[in-house]
Amino acid sequence: MAHNEFKSNVIQPLLTDLYEVTMAYSFWKDRKHDVRAVFDLFFRKNPFQGEFTVFAGLKDCLLYLESFRFSASDISYLKSKLPKNTEPEFFDYLASLTAKDVTVHAVEEGTIVFPKVPLVSLEGPLAVVQLLETTFLTLINFASLVTTNAARYRLAAPENVRLLEFGLRRAQGPDGGLSASKYAFTGGFDGTSNLLAGKIFDIPVSGTHAHSFVMTYSNVNQLNSRTLKNVHDGKEYDFVAACFEWRAKIANKLGIVESEANDGEIAAFIAYALAFPESFVALVDTYNVLRSGLLNFAAVAMALDQFGYHPIGIRIDSGDLAYLSKEAYKLFQQIANHFECPWFTSLHIIASNDLNEDTIHSLNDQGHKITSFAIGTHLVTCQKQPALGCVYKLTEINSQPCIKLSEDLDKVTIPGRKKVYRLYGQDGFAILDLLAKSNEKEPQVGDRILCRHPILESKRAFVIPSSVTCLLEKWWYNGEITRPLPTLVDIKNKVSKGLATLRPDMKRHLNPTPYKVSVTETLYEEMHSIWLENAPIGELS
Amino acid sequence: MAHNEFKSNVIQPLLTDLYEVTMAYSFWKDRKHDVRAVFDLFFRKNPFQGEFTVFAGLKDCLLYLESFRFSASDISYLKSKLPKNTEPEFFDYLASLTAKDVTVHAVEEGTIVFPKVPLVSLEGPLAVVQLLETTFLTLINFASLVTTNAARYRLAAPENVRLLEFGLRRAQGPDGGLSASKYAFTGGFDGTSNLLAGKIFDIPVSGTHAHSFVMTYSNVNQLNSRTLKNVHDGKEYDFVAACFEWRAKIANKLGIVESEANDGEIAAFIAYALAFPESFVALVDTYNVLRSGLLNFAAVAMALDQFGYHPIGIRIDSGDLAYLSKEAYKLFQQIANHFECPWFTSLHIIASNDLNEDTIHSLNDQGHKITSFAIGTHLVTCQKQPALGCVYKLTEINSQPCIKLSEDLDKVTIPGRKKVYRLYGQDGFAILDLLAKSNEKEPQVGDRILCRHPILESKRAFVIPSSVTCLLEKWWYNGEITRPLPTLVDIKNKVSKGLATLRPDMKRHLNPTPYKVSVTETLYEEMHSIWLENAPIGELS
Repeated sequence: MAHNEFKSNVIQPLLTDLYEVTMAYSFWKDRKHDVRAVFDLFFRKNPFQGEFTVFAGLKDCLLYLESFRFSASDISYLKSKLPKNTEPEFFDYLASLTAKDVTVHAVEEGTIVFPKVPLVSLEGPLAVVQLLETTFLTLINFASLVTTNAARYRLAAPENVRLLEFGLRRAQGPDGGLSASKYAFTGGFDGTSNLLAGKIFDIPVSGTHAHSFVMTYSNVNQLNSRTLKNVHDGKEYDFVAACFEWRAKIANKLGIVESEANDGEIAAFIAYALAFPESFVALVDTYNVLRSGLLNFAAVAMALDQFGYHPIGIRIDSGDLAYLSKEAYKLFQQIANHFECPWFTSLHIIASNDLNEDTIHSLNDQGHKITSFAIGTHLVTCQKQPALGCVYKLTEINSQPCIKLSEDLDKVTIPGRKKVYRLYGQDGFAILDLLAKSNEKEPQVGDRILCRHPILESKRAFVIPSSVTCLLEKWWYNGEITRPLPTLVDIKNKVSKGLATLRPDMKRHLNPTPYKVSVTETLYEEMHSIWLENAPIGELS
Repeated sequence: MAHNEFKSNVIQPLLTDLYEVTMAYSFWKDRKHDVRAVFDLFFRKNPFQGEFTVFAGLKDCLLYLESFRFSASDISYLKSKLPKNTEPEFFDYLASLTAKDVTVHAVEEGTIVFPKVPLVSLEGPLAVVQLLETTFLTLINFASLVTTNAARYRLAAPENVRLLEFGLRRAQGPDGGLSASKYAFTGGFDGTSNLLAGKIFDIPVSGTHAHSFVMTYSNVNQLNSRTLKNVHDGKEYDFVAACFEWRAKIANKLGIVESEANDGEIAAFIAYALAFPESFVALVDTYNVLRSGLLNFAAVAMALDQFGYHPIGIRIDSGDLAYLSKEAYKLFQQIANHFECPWFTSLHIIASNDLNEDTIHSLNDQGHKITSFAIGTHLVTCQKQPALGCVYKLTEINSQPCIKLSEDLDKVTIPGRKKVYRLYGQDGFAILDLLAKSNEKEPQVGDRILCRHPILESKRAFVIPSSVTCLLEKWWYNGEITRPLPTLVDIKNKVSKGLATLRPDMKRHLNPTPYKVSVTETLYEEMHSIWLENAPIGELS
C-alpha cells in the first residue's frame, strides 16, 4: 500500500485547541481575520541532552493542509460550544475555509536542525494560520522527537548492528505506536515488529516468538508435527529425532549436561523450526540461557543445517546481555570448530530487554557480541524526554515584523520573514546556520560573512563558507503541494547524510559541543531596533 | 456524537507484532491452534512511584474484539511477509478468525488496581488469544497510565481547583493526544482544550487565547470593532472609551502607574471581550503581569460589568505562579473594596506553565490563589514515567495451570484461572486483594480468611472482611459484549469512588504505604507445587 493511501482519521481540523477557534472568532469579529500574518514553528532546546534534532512530520502537515476543511458536523459541534450570541456568519466563514491562501516554507523532512531555526514558516490570513497552530505542533513535535531519538540510537550502536523497533505494546496509544514505528525507521532503524506500520509504510517487519510460545510445550511428546522435508533429497524425515541426536552430540562434545536442558523448550524450538525452517530464530531465555536455551537452539540449528536449511540465530530478552551474548558467541565458535561448520559463528544474536541509548553505550564498552538490538519502550515513548517543545510564534503581521519579548532571553523571538542558510567549511562539516531577512542577498561561497549571535552583542565571527545551502523551501502554495514528497527511504537517507555533515564532537554522547545558529548583521540590527521600541517602561530587562 | 460512533482507524488486527502471527502459524502448523489457553494481563509495579493504578482501556478492547477480523488486504500483506513455503491454508484460517470463541473476564474500567492482579483474563483458542496480545497491551497500557496520572493530579490539587488538560500540542501523535484528553477526563480532569476530544467524547472544552493574539495588536487604534451592547438598555456604546476610563480610575485609586500598561495588550483584551463578553478570560503575562496585564484586565472586566456582563478571570502562563496568583488575588480584593464589587474576588485565576504533580504540591505549600490548573506536557506524556509495563502471560493451557519462573521473584507468575476479591474493613477502606482459584468458594463477610503473600512463605495474615467484592467480571462471551458499557462519566465516578476506599497513607505523595495483594491457601499450595515441579535442575533459584 502506498504511503498516502492511509491517513489516520483523527487528523482533522478539530484536532486543535479551543482557543484557536475563539481567537479566530475574535479576529473575525474585529475584521482582521484576513490580515496577512507569518508564524514560525521552531524549538528552543535540543532533546535528550544532545546538540542536534532531526526535523520530521512535514509530509503529515502538508497532507493535512490538503484536506483542511471543517465538516458540517464540526461546524454544528462548534456552534454548540461557542457562546449563544456568536454571530452565525462566523460559522459560514469557518465552513468556507481552506488552506488555499496559506504559503508554507519549510526545512526538508529529515534535515538536522537546531534551536531557534524556523522549521516551518506559515504565511497567510491571520485566522487561518492561527487555526493551524496546534495540529502542526502535534504532527511535528512527536515525529521530530522520535526521529531524533532513533538517530541517536543509530549513532550509539555499532554500524554493523541492526536496530529493530519493538515498542508497539508500550507506545502512547495505537497511533503513538504507528508514528513511532514510522519515524524510528526514518531516524535510522532497520525494521519494526509492528505489522500495521509495515503494511502502511512499507517498513521491513521482524519478530521471533514469545516466552509464552515456549511455555505452551512441556515436552516433546506434545508435538503433533514431527517431520521435515530434507532439501537435499526432497523427502520427509523425522526432524525431532535429528534434533535430539544433535543435542546429545553437542552436549557430549562440549561437556554440557544435557539433562539440564528443558525438553519443553526444545519441543517449542522444533515446532517453530518446522514452521519456519528458512528463518529460524529462537528465544533462548525462557528457562536458562546457558544451561538450556543455547544447547536446545544449537541442536535444532544443526538439525536444520543437516536438512539443508539456514537458521538465523537467537534472541536474548533478559539477564546480563553483554555477558550472555559473549557466552553465546563463544559456544557458537566451539560448535563451529568441533563440527566444522564455520557458518555457526555468523548466527545472529538479538538482544531485547529494556534497552536504551545509555545501555547501548555500556554494552559497547563491555565488548558485547550482539548483532541486533530490538528496542521498545525507551525508543517509542522517548523516556529520556517524552516531548519536544516546538512553539509557533507570530513573527510578522500586516508586513510589520514583530518580536515576543521575555525576561528569559532564550525565549525572545527573531522577528520577520527569514531565510536560513547553512554554511559549510572545507572539510564538509557544517559551520553554522545563518538566519537572514528574506530580502537580503544570499551569502556566497568565499565571501567573508559576519555572523552574529542573535542576542549577545559581543558574540560574532566572520565565516568564509566553502559551500552554502538554503534550508527553507516553499512546500505549499495556492492550495497545492509544490515539491515532490520524499519517500520514507529518501528521508532516512537525508538523516544519515545530514548527520555525516555534523562534526563528531557535536554528536558525541557526553557533553557534545553546541552548534551555532547566528543572524546576519542586518537581521541583528532590525531585531534589536524592534526590541528597543518594545522595551518595557519602568524596569530594566 | 456518541462515543462508539467514532473509532480510530488504526485499531485493527494488524496493529500487532509480527511474532504474534508467526506464533499463530507455528501453532496452526503443529495443530494446537485450537487448544484452549488462558492469558492474564497485569502489571508488576505501580507507576509514578505511587502505590495504586487506575485500570482503563477495556471499552476500547471490547470494541476491538467486535471488529476483530483480518481484511483481504491484511491477508495479502501477510502472505507477502511470511516465508514463501507457508501453507496457503493458514491464510484461509486467518481470514476466518473472529473473537467469537474467546471469553474475556476483566476488572471494570476505572477500578483502582494493584500489581499482579489480573486486569483482563482471556480464554480461548491458543492462536486467537495469542494474536490479541499486543493490541490489548497497547490499548490498556497508555489508557491506564494517563488515567492514573490524571487521578494523581486530582489528588494533588485542592478539591475546589479545576483541572484542565491542555496537552495536545505536546502529545505523542494525534491519537496520543486524543487518548490523553479522554483518559485525563476519566481520571479526574474537568475539561480539555482538545476540540476533537470534546466532540467525540463529549468532554467539556476550555480555552482562552494565546500570546500571539495579544501581539497582533500594538495599539487601540487598530481596533475595528469598538462598541458593545449595554445589557441594561439594549443600546450600543463605545466600549473602548469605557475601558480606558476604568483603567485610569483603577490606576489612580490603587496608585498604579497607568503609563506602564501596554496599549496593545488592552486593545487585544478589548477585542476579545467584544467577541466573548459573557465569557471573558484574559492571558495577562504577555508583557508584565503586575505592571500591565492585571491592570488592563481589571479595566476591561469593570467595563464589562458596567455593560451588564460577567467576566470570568485571568490566565497566567509564566513566572512565579504562586506569587503572581497571590498578587493578582490581592489586587482583586483591593478593587472589590475600592469599587464595592465583591464579585471581583471570585474571578478565576488559571495557571498553565509546565505544571506537574510536584509543582502542584509545591504551589499548595506556598498558599497559591490559583483556581484552575491547565496542564499539558507532563500530563499527556506522563513525563515522570511514560510507559506502564503491563504484560500478557500464559497461565493455563489445555486445562493445565502453568507458571512462568524467573530468577527475579517479582516476575514469577501466578498460575491458573483465578478470581479476584477485594476485602474491605469496617471503616470502608480496602484491606487487601485476594486471588483465589476460580473454583474456590467465595470469601464471606465475617469469615476468618487466611491471606498469603504469593511468594514469601512467612508473610500471611488472617483477615475478617466487613464486605467483599469480586473484581473480575465476564465482559465478552460468544462474540458479544455481555455487560452494558459504562459512559466516560460512569468511569470517572468509579475512579473517584474507588480512590475514596483507598487508605490515605496509600495515596500520599511521598513514600505511600503499599497495598497488599495476596493469594488463598489453596492457590498458594497449587502455585508452589507447580513451581517445585518446574524447578530447574542443577542450580539453586
